[in-house]
Amino acid sequence: MKLQFAMDTLSTESALELAAAAAPHVDILELGTPLIKSAGLSAVTAVKAAHPDKVVLADLKTMDAGELEAEIAFAAGADLVTVLGSAGDSTIAGAVKAARKHGKGVVVDLIGVHDKAGRAKEVVALGVDLVEMHAGLDEQAGDGYTLDSLLHDGASAGVPFSVAGGVTAGTIPAVQQSGARIAVAGGAIYGAPDVGAAAAALRAAIV
Amino acid sequence: MKLQFAMDTLSTESALELAAAAAPHVDILELGTPLIKSAGLSAVTAVKAAHPDKVVLADLKTMDAGELEAEIAFAAGADLVTVLGSAGDSTIAGAVKAARKHGKGVVVDLIGVHDKAGRAKEVVALGVDLVEMHAGLDEQAGDGYTLDSLLHDGASAGVPFSVAGGVTAGTIPAVQQSGARIAVAGGAIYGAPDVGAAAAALRAAIV
Repeated sequence: MKLQFAMDTLSTESALELAAAAAPHVDILELGTPLIKSAGLSAVTAVKAAHPDKVVLADLKTMDAGELEAEIAFAAGADLVTVLGSAGDSTIAGAVKAARKHGKGVVVDLIGVHDKAGRAKEVVALGVDLVEMHAGLDEQAGDGYTLDSLLHDGASAGVPFSVAGGVTAGTIPAVQQSGARIAVAGGAIYGAPDVGAAAAALRAAIV
Repeated sequence: MKLQFAMDTLSTESALELAAAAAPHVDILELGTPLIKSAGLSAVTAVKAAHPDKVVLADLKTMDAGELEAEIAFAAGADLVTVLGSAGDSTIAGAVKAARKHGKGVVVDLIGVHDKAGRAKEVVALGVDLVEMHAGLDEQAGDGYTLDSLLHDGASAGVPFSVAGGVTAGTIPAVQQSGARIAVAGGAIYGAPDVGAAAAALRAAIV
């Protein structure tokens, strides 16, 4: 199972600092949606230039203009982009078209989709490489939130998936047991006093 | 009925040129989602600085981190932000909280939502100012697309709404007759040989 670091920060400088600290311990560096909206795609270019050996994911959460948004992110240096599962099929297919052109990949983010397992199968049939079983920051802040339903949806979907929704070193074993290809951690790394040590601890929890 | 110009372009320079040409004829200048992702929120700041008398809408299409994304866009100069109707209620409520703090507004974009009229009522109850009955660029490119279902949904929702989905000078009368508060035009203006003349023609079609 690979480890993806979701950098939920707002400036390119901060993203570069986080990436430098965590990179030795993670496989995929994700630029969060607020970061991309705040700083623009030049943030993607900067992170990829600093870490050419890492997979860089631009969390675009595209809802429309799938081919265009994917195209500009790949041109800026992204290796993977996200499209929303609630987007129309033509939007997802457009992003896949851009990915094929560039030899890169598309992840469908299932945040906000009720039937995550069902939609997962549909979007993989459209050519998507991976789905993200994802509960957002706002959903995680709700009462009684746990990862359980995401892990269940992933295990039952029967397609390659990642899990994002407050993954910690404590929950990594359950994420791995669900069959996830990628565990996505954000706050557990960037919110730690020592970002590098927190990333290393998550890595060490993967068996 | 007000006229909103959706600037679907990719650079701040291009947005400033479009805005300068169209501003005398439109009420609201919208920075499209790909523009914000490409250039960052500095594009919003630049357009607002050049047109302080216009309402500036940042088409964030927020799906998560509602309060944070709205906050940074308002701080950058936006008067209105969009949140997706497919976002969770807590995300929409977070954006409304930021809007109240800044004395600004939130528009919920109903792109991709099946029961647009039903969701419209729900989000207005959450404090949203306006909903956008919206068919995206990818949906418009499909066979047999027309504005009709958007106009029907708007008229039946019973809440303040805008209409976006390929509005032209030819369809403006039907949009106005549906009861829309705002007509959103993009390609009909930015795709015209004379951007200012196209905006003026749309304005003239509003009675």
